[in-house]
Amino acid sequence: MHTLSTQVAGYIEHSSWIRRMFEAGMVLKKKYGQENVYDFSLGNPDLAPPAIVGQALHQIADTATNAFAFGYMPNAGYLDTRKVLAAYLAKEQETPALGPEHLVLTCGAAGGLNGLFRAVLDPGDEVVCPAPYFVEYGFYVENHGGKLCPVPSHPGSYELDLAGIAAALTAKTRVVLINSPNNPTGQVYSGQELEQLGQLLERHSKKTGRPVYLVSDEPYRFLVYDGVQVPPVLPLYAHSVVIGSFSKSLSLAGERVGYVAVNPAMPDCATLLGGLVLTNRILGFVNAPAIGQRLLGAALGHGVDLSVYERRRAAMAAVLDAAEISYVMPKGAFYFFPQVPGTSTDDTAFVKALMDQQVLAVPGSGFGCPGGFRLALCVPEDVILRSGDAFKRAVSAFLA
Amino acid sequence: MHTLSTQVAGYIEHSSWIRRMFEAGMVLKKKYGQENVYDFSLGNPDLAPPAIVGQALHQIADTATNAFAFGYMPNAGYLDTRKVLAAYLAKEQETPALGPEHLVLTCGAAGGLNGLFRAVLDPGDEVVCPAPYFVEYGFYVENHGGKLCPVPSHPGSYELDLAGIAAALTAKTRVVLINSPNNPTGQVYSGQELEQLGQLLERHSKKTGRPVYLVSDEPYRFLVYDGVQVPPVLPLYAHSVVIGSFSKSLSLAGERVGYVAVNPAMPDCATLLGGLVLTNRILGFVNAPAIGQRLLGAALGHGVDLSVYERRRAAMAAVLDAAEISYVMPKGAFYFFPQVPGTSTDDTAFVKALMDQQVLAVPGSGFGCPGGFRLALCVPEDVILRSGDAFKRAVSAFLA
Repeated sequence: MHTLSTQVAGYIEHSSWIRRMFEAGMVLKKKYGQENVYDFSLGNPDLAPPAIVGQALHQIADTATNAFAFGYMPNAGYLDTRKVLAAYLAKEQETPALGPEHLVLTCGAAGGLNGLFRAVLDPGDEVVCPAPYFVEYGFYVENHGGKLCPVPSHPGSYELDLAGIAAALTAKTRVVLINSPNNPTGQVYSGQELEQLGQLLERHSKKTGRPVYLVSDEPYRFLVYDGVQVPPVLPLYAHSVVIGSFSKSLSLAGERVGYVAVNPAMPDCATLLGGLVLTNRILGFVNAPAIGQRLLGAALGHGVDLSVYERRRAAMAAVLDAAEISYVMPKGAFYFFPQVPGTSTDDTAFVKALMDQQVLAVPGSGFGCPGGFRLALCVPEDVILRSGDAFKRAVSAFLA
Repeated sequence: MHTLSTQVAGYIEHSSWIRRMFEAGMVLKKKYGQENVYDFSLGNPDLAPPAIVGQALHQIADTATNAFAFGYMPNAGYLDTRKVLAAYLAKEQETPALGPEHLVLTCGAAGGLNGLFRAVLDPGDEVVCPAPYFVEYGFYVENHGGKLCPVPSHPGSYELDLAGIAAALTAKTRVVLINSPNNPTGQVYSGQELEQLGQLLERHSKKTGRPVYLVSDEPYRFLVYDGVQVPPVLPLYAHSVVIGSFSKSLSLAGERVGYVAVNPAMPDCATLLGGLVLTNRILGFVNAPAIGQRLLGAALGHGVDLSVYERRRAAMAAVLDAAEISYVMPKGAFYFFPQVPGTSTDDTAFVKALMDQQVLAVPGSGFGCPGGFRLALCVPEDVILRSGDAFKRAVSAFLA
């Protein structure tokens, strides 16, 4: 009774599918044993950090008793780390003008997104986002008085529906938020799609007199398959912002290190950066964690072993093929987003059928896209391979 | 031009006094040399972390290449660290029932306060706070749609004005936020004051039918002088919450580790904790930084050398006495909050007079308390002692 705010009480009541799967999974693991549950519900990277992380941490430990060793630094982050990261991103984003002054280090991509929304959203502003989308985006937008407006992607391919996005733009549209490689679909948007999106936003911003920011959330940029390229967004649209993290590429998810990079070509980019530095401070992050920042400075360019994910992707594709479940092969990230088998689009019913066989997945409804379901490849290859029969049994039971 | 939201653009325009002092200080340091500027503006602890921090960091580094070494953990934080902290706080707060399930580890106290306000504030809810107060509180409350309602403390002593607080309570009052030992005054509230405050809130909550939370922000609890005791808040009022951090006690300010402890005696405390775990996640913190959590688990109970602050306090008292500036001797924390000399209450004018002598302070107006100014003891004792003449010159010039 009146313990929480009305909004947060509502959130808890409709708590996320991922969390419910997590809890159901705990029960199943107790009942059947850890090794007999095939848990594809959580995107918690299970690979060890690269060796340089441990080496760098020893070096940091050697200086731990210096004054200010872990004291406050500028709210944007250590200048050294920002310099290293700026040089890296300037190449990756094909934006030579990108310098440390265009970066704010953040508590992961999630902290970066919250800081950005706090900085730019006026009450009632809209954030347009292709669906399916990362389930937390809705919270991040509502935290700061905004409204998430999902636009379904092209069914089957999950490419951007540019006409749909154009139709969703209003005078209140403040941000278009994309995520490529995409969680949950594994789609990577093409340079052509992104260029057309930029042109669309350019025209709309001119019409309304207020810029629409194109925000590209890219925590999975490092993980693509078959030589796919993730096109840089910054060269395509002046009012663009790239947000990333090292949770997956360096297996540092719990230490919380990410960044916001503002396009140097953006008129008044210094004002936006000043706003981001302020919101990073006042939201209570203050700065990205000191030790994580230093680890990033030392380990940037290194990464986890990607061949592991390649093998897992192949294993999961084989399992789904054998179970006659249809899917689009992910181009990047570590998820599959297959379709519910047969003519049904009842994703929660199929996820329950999977759970009856000790397979944990997340219904597409949780990502604003009923009819599909998400499988995360954060378990060893042999777990994937051993799950084959369970998938087959779930399909048989579901279609019976 | 429409770069930031209206509210954040306004924040930037009226950017905080502390920040302006920081920038002015940079200019002075360039002009006169670092050693000729007496910088009492920033509360950035300059003491080295205790030796155990470096030792623990080496141990953490040894396990850095384990899978999940720095992966996601429960949003409330590592259970091990929460167990150690709960045992510590159960004693400190004289609340034996306090267990790990009553704690959420947060990105410093700032992250804890933001998570709490996100969890409990409905739009327009009011947070009553004794003035002077930590300048960031206003932002933390407004981030989540609330309104900060300052109540001046007793002039001179900075004890709680309980009648003033009673008069400020309305049907919209959701939180009373106290900070003891206080930044900026160094005041420590007595057990009697806190007990009366609890009774006041008990009566008010009964009247309105909605509990008012008593939130005690205690990052300076570890630092008191002359044997002063900081009374525990939890035994005095059921709807109480303690928020703390290890930024100062372990000199880990940049690594961002703190906590929220919910009173086990609070009816429905599990609901509030569920809300805090959710808001920790959706605000983008996700969890307190993994490495900082582990450092806390290893180093809790250790601390920086407090005798350093004792000597600095004595040195500053001598400097102020010699300059005939009146002040209340701080009982805790590392600040003085003296009064503007003479009959003037123009704190910004006196801070400018100090700056003319290369002394950096923050006007009390920045803390909701004109007529005073804040001096932080985060510089070596010899800097304090060498500043004596500059203070005298500033007073002479100001009174002339």
